[in-house]
Amino acid sequence: MKTRAAVAFQAGKPLSIEEVDLDGPKEGEVLVEIKATGICHTDEFTLSGADPEGAFPAILGHEGAGVVVDVGPGVKTLKKGDHVIPLYTPECRECEYCLNPKTNLCQAIRTTQGAGVMPDGTSRFSLNGEKILHYMGTSTFANHTVLPEIALAKVREDAPFDKICYIGCGVTTGIGAVINTAKVEPGSNVVVFGLGGIGLNVIQGAKLVGANMIVGVDLNPAKKEMAEKFGMTHFVNPKEVEGDLVPYLVDLTKGGADYSFECIGLPQTMRQALECCHKGWGESIIIGVAGAGQEISTRPFQLVTGRSWRGTAFGGARGRTDVPKIVDWYMDGKISIDPMITHTLTLDEINKGFDLMHAGESIRSVVVYD
Amino acid sequence: MKTRAAVAFQAGKPLSIEEVDLDGPKEGEVLVEIKATGICHTDEFTLSGADPEGAFPAILGHEGAGVVVDVGPGVKTLKKGDHVIPLYTPECRECEYCLNPKTNLCQAIRTTQGAGVMPDGTSRFSLNGEKILHYMGTSTFANHTVLPEIALAKVREDAPFDKICYIGCGVTTGIGAVINTAKVEPGSNVVVFGLGGIGLNVIQGAKLVGANMIVGVDLNPAKKEMAEKFGMTHFVNPKEVEGDLVPYLVDLTKGGADYSFECIGLPQTMRQALECCHKGWGESIIIGVAGAGQEISTRPFQLVTGRSWRGTAFGGARGRTDVPKIVDWYMDGKISIDPMITHTLTLDEINKGFDLMHAGESIRSVVVYD
Repeated sequence: MKTRAAVAFQAGKPLSIEEVDLDGPKEGEVLVEIKATGICHTDEFTLSGADPEGAFPAILGHEGAGVVVDVGPGVKTLKKGDHVIPLYTPECRECEYCLNPKTNLCQAIRTTQGAGVMPDGTSRFSLNGEKILHYMGTSTFANHTVLPEIALAKVREDAPFDKICYIGCGVTTGIGAVINTAKVEPGSNVVVFGLGGIGLNVIQGAKLVGANMIVGVDLNPAKKEMAEKFGMTHFVNPKEVEGDLVPYLVDLTKGGADYSFECIGLPQTMRQALECCHKGWGESIIIGVAGAGQEISTRPFQLVTGRSWRGTAFGGARGRTDVPKIVDWYMDGKISIDPMITHTLTLDEINKGFDLMHAGESIRSVVVYD
Repeated sequence: MKTRAAVAFQAGKPLSIEEVDLDGPKEGEVLVEIKATGICHTDEFTLSGADPEGAFPAILGHEGAGVVVDVGPGVKTLKKGDHVIPLYTPECRECEYCLNPKTNLCQAIRTTQGAGVMPDGTSRFSLNGEKILHYMGTSTFANHTVLPEIALAKVREDAPFDKICYIGCGVTTGIGAVINTAKVEPGSNVVVFGLGGIGLNVIQGAKLVGANMIVGVDLNPAKKEMAEKFGMTHFVNPKEVEGDLVPYLVDLTKGGADYSFECIGLPQTMRQALECCHKGWGESIIIGVAGAGQEISTRPFQLVTGRSWRGTAFGGARGRTDVPKIVDWYMDGKISIDPMITHTLTLDEINKGFDLMHAGESIRSVVVYD
């Protein structure tokens, strides 16, 4: 079949809207009509050329929502008409990782997904007979895409696509880091570095679980108002702090953060996030993705005196199990998404979404397919 | 009263055996006759001058066992004749730290202990009218010493002092790191960097809890035989590994260590210990103490893909509660100590204990008082 897609032909160039060829689903695969997709920093990271594993030409996009159009042989858990959210972290429920309760990093299709192809080693996308790669196993910048059954979460049908697409990455990453990875307890003091889309979701996750202080750290004072709406109790602008930021945060939290979250991707803020944690028990969770080759450092004394340094991917969530629950929380009003979707675009306008991100004007831009 | 003690008058010089003056116990304090004391690397670290917080003149020693001789006013849990192990990490059971189940770092007397004095700000030791400092709140290189009640674990009276003194630091640090900090589960694959006194106790802790592979890493092949006696299943000499050590260890453990322990104190081995952990869930515990100003580094990707970096002090043990249990385990034959006590010395021979340590000829030297 033919479908419209935004194709990344090479790093550093705008996406190009093309009518591409899409092969139907093979064994264990599902054809999905994407109804809406968010534009995430990870797409930008790859498109910019900074991602050492980025390969082109490819159809980017990993934060989508849509409807099942067709299923290949052997697909048992999904049928035509089901509403789904694509999962860049699948959940096969059979691999060593899925069977270990300590991780969500299903490895069932990791190698082929990383190579931009389906589990059988081939791509479903092409243009004029030339292969186009998949991206993160999802390629939601295409109006139709093919995914393995294990990479789709089935969700309720009354949830709006243009909002729940954000649960495919940012919402789950932020809230999940709080509830799955850190397991923040009620009454905890939390510090969040970076008040972008991920940071706001960490904040609403911390509020959801009954945190006490929720301190947001950002150089941009314009972030304060929105973060407060999501539950931030204290705002710290490092530019306005006299002296070092770390002792300031330790004082503010009366001994240090029980949990801190780094949602920026810079080694310097990762170190600050660790070191502002409480002696004896503070845990720092890295969410942000650092540039290729960058390293984090600290004195080992920080760890020996009881702080721990951890990380999380996709918020520690098992997508097929956890994503439908988060959709329910949104529909029940337990969490909020609408104010974070600051811009809605057509597929033809998708490059504007990247421009808004670069200008810092959007929290999330969402492309809605016609 | 008068008592004999090995006094450290200045960094880098041998200890000097002196008859020092010791004031009796004040409110909440206990006078203990030390019967035996181990000589630990931490004593050497301070005596060498490398410890930035080291202060002189002082009476070092923190790995002792002895008998209560007298108690000051208000002491309720100890009486004359009780057998005790001094605790450099006390357990007041009342501070914010003692009341938080995530840490053992009681802060009740931290400031004064760090300054080399008793909680009232004064020292009990003097020589010719000049004050001599306490060390780690214990000063077990004196035949008699005074400690706060909260810094003494009461232990059974049939346990031999010249063996259980080692439970005051090395045994508890190694075994505790496994059972309290890492909480190693049966069937886990464990990698231990450094097969000295701490490493051997990590190994017997891992064996005690039913670990599967227990891999020891050391540059000295002479360490292999003893480590195997304590439960090591695989020995790796980095000098004999072709190529990088980390991928070798990951292969050996079929994906990486579930838990790794750094018992050396070098930033390079701390990094290797983290990076040889299993993706998704591996935890690395730093036990070794790095030199002043040294820093550890890694790529944040190591943490984002599910490894965690932690540390431990005194094996995460709460001394008054946990040390008596470890003494019981020793007396019941669940753990072994005797083969690790390679040398027994008199107080007059104490400097020989440091020489043996420097030469790598001892695992543990113990001074037995007459």
